[in-house]
Amino acid sequence: MSGAVPDFSRGLVAAVVQDVESGEVLMVAHMDEEAWRRTRDTGRAWFHSRRRGLWEKGATSGNYLDVVETKLDCDLDAVLLKVRPHGPACHTGARSCFFNDV
Amino acid sequence: MSGAVPDFSRGLVAAVVQDVESGEVLMVAHMDEEAWRRTRDTGRAWFHSRRRGLWEKGATSGNYLDVVETKLDCDLDAVLLKVRPHGPACHTGARSCFFNDV
Repeated sequence: MSGAVPDFSRGLVAAVVQDVESGEVLMVAHMDEEAWRRTRDTGRAWFHSRRRGLWEKGATSGNYLDVVETKLDCDLDAVLLKVRPHGPACHTGARSCFFNDV
Repeated sequence: MSGAVPDFSRGLVAAVVQDVESGEVLMVAHMDEEAWRRTRDTGRAWFHSRRRGLWEKGATSGNYLDVVETKLDCDLDAVLLKVRPHGPACHTGARSCFFNDV
């Protein structure tokens, strides 16, 4: 399917952020329709969280995520953003949020 | 952090599934504590969905996901499973669920 849009009818959709060069998964956040629209309009990643509402990744830290490619999953309730990160993606300063071993 | 466990206090956690060889993101699903425990105990991916409850990926299709490595994110509410998939990960027969272009 080309020109697909997410299905927000059941609420927020999960957004997986992947480094387009290394393939590393950097973070997971959520989007509502407004975050989706801003991401499409600006080419940078915007998210929605229940605590913060609408937020642009990097607005505070400078660590913006430039979106190179966007994919939606089979049932249109998850988004994959392939990005070029400006610096570390994690608020802790780590390159990826997924640094905890199990 | 080593030996970390997810924080289920705010409900389900997002689980991102990535092919350990290719780095391709295959699907996103969710886990509750039981799905997490079964995944740890069996070495295969189990999930929880509001519609289906507890389910093992591959139980119907044979397309199991063998978990090679597991990571948790900075705030312990997202899981990254690096897997060896048995066949296509998507119920449509696609290798990855993220086949829709935007």
